[in-house]
Amino acid sequence: MSPSATTRPLNHAIISDCLPPKSHPNGYVTANAPPPPPAELDASALLFTPTTLVRTVPEPNSPEILSQSACTDHMITASWTQSQGWSSPEMKPYGPFSLMPTASVLHYATECFEGLKAYRGFDGKLRLFRPDRNCNRMLVSSARVALPTVPPKELEKLMKALLAIDGPKWLPKSRPGKFIYLRPAIIATHPALGVQKPKEALLFIIACFLPCLDEPAAVATPQSPVAVTPHCNRGLKLLASSDDMIRAWPGGYGYAKIGANYGPSLVAQASARERGCEQILWLFGDDCYVTEAGASNFFVVWGTREGGLELVTAPLEERLILDGVTRASVLELARERLCGGGKETVKVVERGFTMFELAEAVEEGRIIEAFAAGTAVGYLSLSLLPILG
Amino acid sequence: MSPSATTRPLNHAIISDCLPPKSHPNGYVTANAPPPPPAELDASALLFTPTTLVRTVPEPNSPEILSQSACTDHMITASWTQSQGWSSPEMKPYGPFSLMPTASVLHYATECFEGLKAYRGFDGKLRLFRPDRNCNRMLVSSARVALPTVPPKELEKLMKALLAIDGPKWLPKSRPGKFIYLRPAIIATHPALGVQKPKEALLFIIACFLPCLDEPAAVATPQSPVAVTPHCNRGLKLLASSDDMIRAWPGGYGYAKIGANYGPSLVAQASARERGCEQILWLFGDDCYVTEAGASNFFVVWGTREGGLELVTAPLEERLILDGVTRASVLELARERLCGGGKETVKVVERGFTMFELAEAVEEGRIIEAFAAGTAVGYLSLSLLPILG
Repeated sequence: MSPSATTRPLNHAIISDCLPPKSHPNGYVTANAPPPPPAELDASALLFTPTTLVRTVPEPNSPEILSQSACTDHMITASWTQSQGWSSPEMKPYGPFSLMPTASVLHYATECFEGLKAYRGFDGKLRLFRPDRNCNRMLVSSARVALPTVPPKELEKLMKALLAIDGPKWLPKSRPGKFIYLRPAIIATHPALGVQKPKEALLFIIACFLPCLDEPAAVATPQSPVAVTPHCNRGLKLLASSDDMIRAWPGGYGYAKIGANYGPSLVAQASARERGCEQILWLFGDDCYVTEAGASNFFVVWGTREGGLELVTAPLEERLILDGVTRASVLELARERLCGGGKETVKVVERGFTMFELAEAVEEGRIIEAFAAGTAVGYLSLSLLPILG
Repeated sequence: MSPSATTRPLNHAIISDCLPPKSHPNGYVTANAPPPPPAELDASALLFTPTTLVRTVPEPNSPEILSQSACTDHMITASWTQSQGWSSPEMKPYGPFSLMPTASVLHYATECFEGLKAYRGFDGKLRLFRPDRNCNRMLVSSARVALPTVPPKELEKLMKALLAIDGPKWLPKSRPGKFIYLRPAIIATHPALGVQKPKEALLFIIACFLPCLDEPAAVATPQSPVAVTPHCNRGLKLLASSDDMIRAWPGGYGYAKIGANYGPSLVAQASARERGCEQILWLFGDDCYVTEAGASNFFVVWGTREGGLELVTAPLEERLILDGVTRASVLELARERLCGGGKETVKVVERGFTMFELAEAVEEGRIIEAFAAGTAVGYLSLSLLPILG
């Protein structure tokens, strides 16, 4: 069965296989009409080409999962050109892209992405965690690197469509509490070496397995030499960034989920690992403001000298840090549930705080806990993690 | 003729077609020997698969050339893995790459590149302009984004090998004074979503046509809506960067030729073009230090208040700017030829200078000239270009 023979609009496929093809909204095409405006991305036009391969679902924390490269049966793609706008999105078998060597993304980092988890609940239901926030952030990120934007609602619909097809098999009811990681991304495919705003791009959404950080089975193997010991058992050691490795700066793009924030961070990350730490604690400026931990937001709970309790994290205003979905959730939960006014009241503070303040608090025995919060590191990093170890 | 039937070591092909295959240096393989260390890139092991397509060389500044996507018959690639090191490089027909959607380069900007021109001299010879400097810089850039490094000498040999095969046809003797643009790049192909130092990468070298900025024939067409009017005829208008669009920062990576310095600059570049300017003049800090112009270095010649002449450009020490090959050549030439001690002596100064100094010099009528210097913009931007237009 050839792929084209089975390609059909996904929604139509459920309702009917013989709806008339889409035509111009007014029903006819005028001769010499002005060209239509570039098309918006329309999730309802999704085409579906089912895979014909039979693949098995990897075991939790098997070498295949630890490789962080195992994806589900399908992916969604939509292509964009400056003149035409977005094509109809397609759900099709997961597989490689063909890119010209001159493609903008391979030279100029014209790329942005999102990451969120789909969970299989203990009640058997599939859930995405606040996908609207990721879709809104993708809009911000794509605009920052001159990529076309995607209406957040349409992106959310596409992610749900992928999950509706691949979820039942790849995140089955027999695995309650487990997750798969959805990765939408936009890359500039425009094959031209000129340094310029790209005229062609590709949106894709894949669903990938990431190691489950609370599984004790995760150990180093020849295939995956990085051991994934559960963080909750041993804490997270962070190495403070050095002056020649700063992550982001005012007027830059530290707030955007774009490739440019990641590649240049890997040398520092590797040096942290060589020194027995899991990640970098990113500092900024002569005052050593604490901004992020690895690719996550960073929180401290400390006692103030006045005897109060504070949950503190870096602020969003300077746009140095990512506006994390988990970060926002931690703040909301803490404000709702820990600011009750009783003895255990925690004051929730978003403000710049420095490494010197942190060191002082350690010396004075005022640190209660510190943790990293992010989607990929998992909700478990929200448990109490000793730092400065 | 299948490609594999014609694949052969390039150097051997010239000498003999029947040399024995390469084996272990000591001539035999020991059982249970420790794995060999990762291989260095070895240009002398280059394999060659000639193209079987017949393609025509585009006319100077034809729409095909203005598209900045036309490449020559062949490209060179070499793949790298953390355990094995570099494969034998291959020269093969120019064509698309196959990359997994999880490839690191598509998400994390794990990419670096170089750009240099090969010129057809009026004496009929092909020349590269100081390729050793580009190859040395590629070493610096690749290390900054945790990519494998390539010995500069080997990279230079590979570029020359590509030019030896494609130069005679694509940059023929009938086009003296013309150039093609060589683009070596390294991208991380490692198919894994974890934010980590990549374990697989690809080096490639392509030869591409760029518009010739001194050709009066270059005009806007529907295919290439950006008119390429010769800069030398009209000067270069620059828009000063705004506070929320900062290109680089101390401790960052403004000095490296990595994707992360380009994608995030395109929004500012597009806004410059919307306002009738060619490029952004990148300023830094509250004092508005002048750093780069577009993706080029920036020079000013002004009269000092003491009556002297100065050629001034931003310094390399803070690592905010690219250590440009053309920049270095301009400085060398000026120091050799314009510092003679006579009346026309120009003092050559690498130091931080600000937009306010520039504005003052304009007001006081002390600006003699200002220009951008870079490979892609062409040596012609070294002619006198009025700024602050």
